[in-house]
Amino acid sequence: MLEIDLGHPADYHVHLRQGEMTAAVTPAVRKGGMSIAYVMPNLTPPVTDIERVQKYKAELQRISPKTTFLMTFYLSKVLTPEVVYKAAKLGAIQGIKCYPAGVTTNSGAGIDPSDFSRFYPIFKVMQDTGLVLNLHGERPSIQSEGINVINAEPTFLPALFAIHRDFPRLRIVLEHCTTRAAIRAISEINKDLKKGQIPTVVGSITAHHLFLTIDDWTGNPVNYCKPVAKFTEDRDALVRAATSGKSYFIFGSDSAPHEISKKCTFNKIAAGVYTQPYVLSYLAELFERNGKLDMLKNFVSKFGSRFYGMDDESKLACKDRCYLVKKPVQIPEKLCYNGIELTIFRPCKELSWSVEWR
Amino acid sequence: MLEIDLGHPADYHVHLRQGEMTAAVTPAVRKGGMSIAYVMPNLTPPVTDIERVQKYKAELQRISPKTTFLMTFYLSKVLTPEVVYKAAKLGAIQGIKCYPAGVTTNSGAGIDPSDFSRFYPIFKVMQDTGLVLNLHGERPSIQSEGINVINAEPTFLPALFAIHRDFPRLRIVLEHCTTRAAIRAISEINKDLKKGQIPTVVGSITAHHLFLTIDDWTGNPVNYCKPVAKFTEDRDALVRAATSGKSYFIFGSDSAPHEISKKCTFNKIAAGVYTQPYVLSYLAELFERNGKLDMLKNFVSKFGSRFYGMDDESKLACKDRCYLVKKPVQIPEKLCYNGIELTIFRPCKELSWSVEWR
Repeated sequence: MLEIDLGHPADYHVHLRQGEMTAAVTPAVRKGGMSIAYVMPNLTPPVTDIERVQKYKAELQRISPKTTFLMTFYLSKVLTPEVVYKAAKLGAIQGIKCYPAGVTTNSGAGIDPSDFSRFYPIFKVMQDTGLVLNLHGERPSIQSEGINVINAEPTFLPALFAIHRDFPRLRIVLEHCTTRAAIRAISEINKDLKKGQIPTVVGSITAHHLFLTIDDWTGNPVNYCKPVAKFTEDRDALVRAATSGKSYFIFGSDSAPHEISKKCTFNKIAAGVYTQPYVLSYLAELFERNGKLDMLKNFVSKFGSRFYGMDDESKLACKDRCYLVKKPVQIPEKLCYNGIELTIFRPCKELSWSVEWR
Repeated sequence: MLEIDLGHPADYHVHLRQGEMTAAVTPAVRKGGMSIAYVMPNLTPPVTDIERVQKYKAELQRISPKTTFLMTFYLSKVLTPEVVYKAAKLGAIQGIKCYPAGVTTNSGAGIDPSDFSRFYPIFKVMQDTGLVLNLHGERPSIQSEGINVINAEPTFLPALFAIHRDFPRLRIVLEHCTTRAAIRAISEINKDLKKGQIPTVVGSITAHHLFLTIDDWTGNPVNYCKPVAKFTEDRDALVRAATSGKSYFIFGSDSAPHEISKKCTFNKIAAGVYTQPYVLSYLAELFERNGKLDMLKNFVSKFGSRFYGMDDESKLACKDRCYLVKKPVQIPEKLCYNGIELTIFRPCKELSWSVEWR
């Protein structure tokens, strides 16, 4: 097979930052083969009001008119059910992202996952208006409670089940699954899903977590992100899920650009793996290596967009189709966009699939 | 208690490097309160011949005449039983260090721990001549075998039991224990040890592993070393062992100086935590915090030196005694020795115990 028509691939977890970084990295969404970008709200300060999210979206649209941007609020104490209701009715946001405090970049304003009840009034509005709850599914590391970067995700899962139990119609994404336990939880919730039925709770999986295990980020900042990559059996469970053709596993890259200087310090390295400009090439290599190239379109173009109600060309900013073409692409050692140097996933590797828009 | 006479503390696992780095870091052994330094052989190329080890020792002695240096060979295929016998008889070395290939700095020439039998002729000579076998107790990470940085030590332990079974009189140190499993293994081997009897197999414990868990080095290169720090229950087991007064847990800092530039890269960070210049201050703080300050002298001055047969003042290059004095010491953000910038453990912290020689 020398080329594959992937239609309109969508990345349902993207960090486009702010200021000069936004100008630098936003065009990479299309470069990487994505027609739709679901944009994270963890700016400083976090995105929590309608005017700001509209201005942010307009800025992104101006930079990349051919990319469709879907926007989110940051779940925090400053959000009110009224603002959420209004934002939903206006179509200003498609979802709300929940970060446990301190687990990743700019999550300082995040919340305590053992105390979701305070947000139930907001969850109710979200359920009624069809907004999606995007969960960063980790408990913050707390030594006294034995929570660490390895068990942070499994120990969060009871909170996912509790929210789903209390809001059975609320659409929830467990973002960037990294463990066999998370894959099992999503499968368990969907065990009675009928063929063709759209799931209410899905798990998103990144490109880099399909490649990495703990030894790949130990001593290697370019591969360091939260949640951290876990063990071989976890990585293999992610690969099986992403290539399974199960509609409750969707693609979200969690592609997180960081300046090289933030990755090269001796005390606090920025967490995040940047895959955006080559993300389809990474995925194609991984799916092909596993003999599942025929499952790639489901994962990147169908399941996520059906879950988010974006499986309708008329909603797209541009109808160009993305083609995966068997043509080598060389990953540089590092990137330089508008003078900003960034680390890039799998530096210096040559990949065998490229992206073309037609 | 305002001061404690520690006598002659000894660090039975020290990296003093080569060239300019050696000149820079060797004086820090005494600065950190250590009278004796047991010197690792992982230079490039590794130390495997008598002339080289004698020259290396002479160089160290010239730099720090008041420090007693004990020397080691690097276990590798180039070593012969004849050379080992001669080195032992000359007193040129006190032990031989075994590194599984690729587990730490300059261990590329190391060996496969599943294949120790090839070294049995050397182990026999070591047993007969009283040399110590220093084991870096990790299996190399091999995905296909499910070995990773977390289980690398527990999966190595069967090799320790096998060598001890086949050479029951060979003195062995399981270096820098990091897991509850390793502590249990050493305790199990010594379960019938009589009071006052010198153990044949001991475990050494570093200063930094008494402080660190996985979350402390995740994203924090200054705390990144091999073996990596593990989980809270492992760290707590190390603290209990070091403060237990059990003679089969001895001190070896594995203090490993690295230039800041080697700690600040985005692809391959140097593994190693540098504690040497303040190592007694770290230990005093830890022992005091655990209400075990009275156990510190056993750990740093008695058990190790009795095991190595160094509990005899006449063997020391200098009879000065080390006093721990209740006087604050400020750890800098980084060190600069002879123009070489180094990372240092617990940068910017103030510790409450200082070292004085009298």
